[in-house]
Amino acid sequence: MKLRPLHDRVIVKRVEEERTTPGGIVIPDSATEKPIRGEVIAVGNGKILDNGEQRALDVKVGDTVLFGKYSGTEVKVDDDELLVMREDDIMAVIDS
Amino acid sequence: MKLRPLHDRVIVKRVEEERTTPGGIVIPDSATEKPIRGEVIAVGNGKILDNGEQRALDVKVGDTVLFGKYSGTEVKVDDDELLVMREDDIMAVIDS
Amino acid sequence: MKLRPLHDRVIVKRVEEERTTPGGIVIPDSATEKPIRGEVIAVGNGKILDNGEQRALDVKVGDTVLFGKYSGTEVKVDDDELLVMREDDIMAVIDS
Amino acid sequence: MKLRPLHDRVIVKRVEEERTTPGGIVIPDSATEKPIRGEVIAVGNGKILDNGEQRALDVKVGDTVLFGKYSGTEVKVDDDELLVMREDDIMAVIDS
Amino acid sequence: MKLRPLHDRVIVKRVEEERTTPGGIVIPDSATEKPIRGEVIAVGNGKILDNGEQRALDVKVGDTVLFGKYSGTEVKVDDDELLVMREDDIMAVIDS
Amino acid sequence: MKLRPLHDRVIVKRVEEERTTPGGIVIPDSATEKPIRGEVIAVGNGKILDNGEQRALDVKVGDTVLFGKYSGTEVKVDDDELLVMREDDIMAVIDS
Amino acid sequence: MKLRPLHDRVIVKRVEEERTTPGGIVIPDSATEKPIRGEVIAVGNGKILDNGEQRALDVKVGDTVLFGKYSGTEVKVDDDELLVMREDDIMAVIDS
Repeated sequence: MKLRPLHDRVIVKRVEEERTTPGGIVIPDSATEKPIRGEVIAVGNGKILDNGEQRALDVKVGDTVLFGKYSGTEVKVDDDELLVMREDDIMAVIDS
Repeated sequence: MKLRPLHDRVIVKRVEEERTTPGGIVIPDSATEKPIRGEVIAVGNGKILDNGEQRALDVKVGDTVLFGKYSGTEVKVDDDELLVMREDDIMAVIDS
Repeated sequence: MKLRPLHDRVIVKRVEEERTTPGGIVIPDSATEKPIRGEVIAVGNGKILDNGEQRALDVKVGDTVLFGKYSGTEVKVDDDELLVMREDDIMAVIDS
Repeated sequence: MKLRPLHDRVIVKRVEEERTTPGGIVIPDSATEKPIRGEVIAVGNGKILDNGEQRALDVKVGDTVLFGKYSGTEVKVDDDELLVMREDDIMAVIDS
Repeated sequence: MKLRPLHDRVIVKRVEEERTTPGGIVIPDSATEKPIRGEVIAVGNGKILDNGEQRALDVKVGDTVLFGKYSGTEVKVDDDELLVMREDDIMAVIDS
Repeated sequence: MKLRPLHDRVIVKRVEEERTTPGGIVIPDSATEKPIRGEVIAVGNGKILDNGEQRALDVKVGDTVLFGKYSGTEVKVDDDELLVMREDDIMAVIDS
Repeated sequence: MKLRPLHDRVIVKRVEEERTTPGGIVIPDSATEKPIRGEVIAVGNGKILDNGEQRALDVKVGDTVLFGKYSGTEVKVDDDELLVMREDDIMAVIDS
């Protein structure tokens, strides 16, 4: 079973943070219980522009991305907890 | 009797979730009583763009799709409970 | 006396639902007292686009249409209760 | 003294409804004290489009029009109570 | 000292209404203490369109205009009470 | 140290009003404690248009401008209290 | 580990203000506990325009920038507290 997101949506799998590791991204204060780093599992065909063209996304499958704590909608597929969000909810790609 | 949706609207028939099956999509927490997977029954001719063109939709009849719990408007046709929603309310197509 | 709607507006006459008939559209729950099926009585010349062109509507006089319970504005003409709404308020055409 | 409305604005003079006449438009329920039929007294040169062009209006002086009960702004000119509104507030032209 | 408004802004000087004169514009009800007729004192170079062009305004210096009671921002220049507003806040030009 | 505003932003230094001087701009009523006249200290390269072009601003360094009492964001640079605002917050240029 | 922001986002590292230094930017009143000066650490490839083109940003890595006290989202990377914000949240570049 596979999710194929529409348009500018991407599917992301959360990455568990190692909170004490030097070099890990740690979200300060009240955010510590919900990591906001994830791996891109699937991407849509691109955003529909006003002129009808479809612009390919900038993130690709396999990218590790940073996103807002409340971004996206949770779904559970094959025991994986996934997030469906728009590419614009992604703030940055993390190059390790 | 048949519903022909306008523009970028699609008509979706909810699929009953088998909640305990491995591989089924299970919506966590409070969402368990309302599955959000469905089959596309009919699609509109496409979204009207700013320049007057009509862009064909990306979902097609027969697709199994994932959508938000509160998406769409319910109607009952021939004892079927259907949902009318916009294509943009659909988050992903589920390829089985 | 005749109403000629402007632009993307249409005039619709509600159809009384036969609630118990198999094949009739029945709106579930609290909506049973207000049917949301109607017949298109008149249509405007089309929506004004950003570039000044006017795009002809997709619904035509005589279509039976499905619309939201609170869509449109009620007017009474020659003892008929009519609704004036925008084409975008119409969710689907019902082909019988 | 004459009002020349700007752009897509029109000036409308309310028509007193004959509420009991067959064929008259009667607004149901609570609206009976405020008729919403009027005659167009003056029209602007047209709506300014995004590309700077000006699109001529579809209503013309002398048209009897139907508009929402709370549309427009009231002004009194030479003892006439007039309404200034945008063409988009007009729902339909009434052809008698 | 002179005010040169930017873009689609205009500067208007309120005209005192002669409330009892036949032919004068009288604002009904609660509006009687604040006339909404004025003379255009200065106009901007035009509205900036989406394509970067600047469209000249339709009102010109010397026009008597009608505007909403709460339109614009008051400034006092050389003992004159003036109003700075956008051209779109002006409903009509009054040709006497 | 120098501030270089981005895009359509400008940096303005408030001018102390001489409230009793004939010819000075006096803001009526409750606004007397906060003058809203200022001198433009720096301007951005221009507003980014929808087509990607950058339109040069209409105000220039040295202009005395009029702006809304609550416009802009205050910053202190080298003991000067400055305001950063968008050009669209400026209502008029004051030619003395 | 490196953050690569998407589109028109930039990553900024706050600069500690020397509040008493002549020539330092001091934010007045209640803002004294949160400096709003920072150094640009990384920039996105540019803003996606309506026509699908991508416009390169005006700020570059190394710029010292001024931004609103509540702009951006905080993340901690390698013990650095960083901010991810859109270029439009940046008010000015500080040339020292």
